[in-house]
Amino acid sequence: MRENRWLDEIKWDDQGLVPAIAQDFETGQILMMAWMNRESLLLTQQEQRAVYWSRSRLRLWRKGEESGHVQKLHDLQLDCDADVILLKVEQMGGIACHTGRAHCFFRSLKEGQWHENAAVVKDPKEIYNND
Amino acid sequence: MRENRWLDEIKWDDQGLVPAIAQDFETGQILMMAWMNRESLLLTQQEQRAVYWSRSRLRLWRKGEESGHVQKLHDLQLDCDADVILLKVEQMGGIACHTGRAHCFFRSLKEGQWHENAAVVKDPKEIYNND
Repeated sequence: MRENRWLDEIKWDDQGLVPAIAQDFETGQILMMAWMNRESLLLTQQEQRAVYWSRSRLRLWRKGEESGHVQKLHDLQLDCDADVILLKVEQMGGIACHTGRAHCFFRSLKEGQWHENAAVVKDPKEIYNND
Repeated sequence: MRENRWLDEIKWDDQGLVPAIAQDFETGQILMMAWMNRESLLLTQQEQRAVYWSRSRLRLWRKGEESGHVQKLHDLQLDCDADVILLKVEQMGGIACHTGRAHCFFRSLKEGQWHENAAVVKDPKEIYNND
């Protein structure tokens, strides 16, 4: 479709996916990285919120669908090789990670070991309904 | 080897790679995303500079080896699923992209089209010796 020509410029991998990095639009904090297929990227643009493709569940994943931690889209960017997406987002609830932390990159390497650099904001048991 | 146990925690994909995001350690600008294998990640830590695995050239790629645009490592971070690396770096020369721009994410989607959001800092012909 002509109106979705911007999608044709993207170089999907052999599984039809591209990595998508979510970055806080205000602080610049990198929140997470997940994957998108053509449909999820189109929905991201149409719904102005991050919609990923879950490789483990093999289905669309509207970020925040369970937790309420929606990522509201502020800008959608593409890299030089057209094979990585960058989303500038507003992270609703201030929690991007399923561990209950603000972001997923909560381990830093110090003297040959991974050390936690970010505290749990909310217990995941309180975020997800595991009925 | 015991001293490299931190590498064993990483979940490499079926090609033995993980995505590695490079972010400016001061401004928070996302510079680029490339790939690393076990050897390149170890070298990144040992040499305190970004060393990627080039999927097109099938060889180690010491970022800046041709251009001088080395990425000096300030912090090495790992995400919750242990399958994405985040490098906080100091970008020597202020240019991360092979197009001569400060970063690779120089296209933003506006009204259904990609628009450039960052100017070329230096002509690539002046950066790379194509003899």
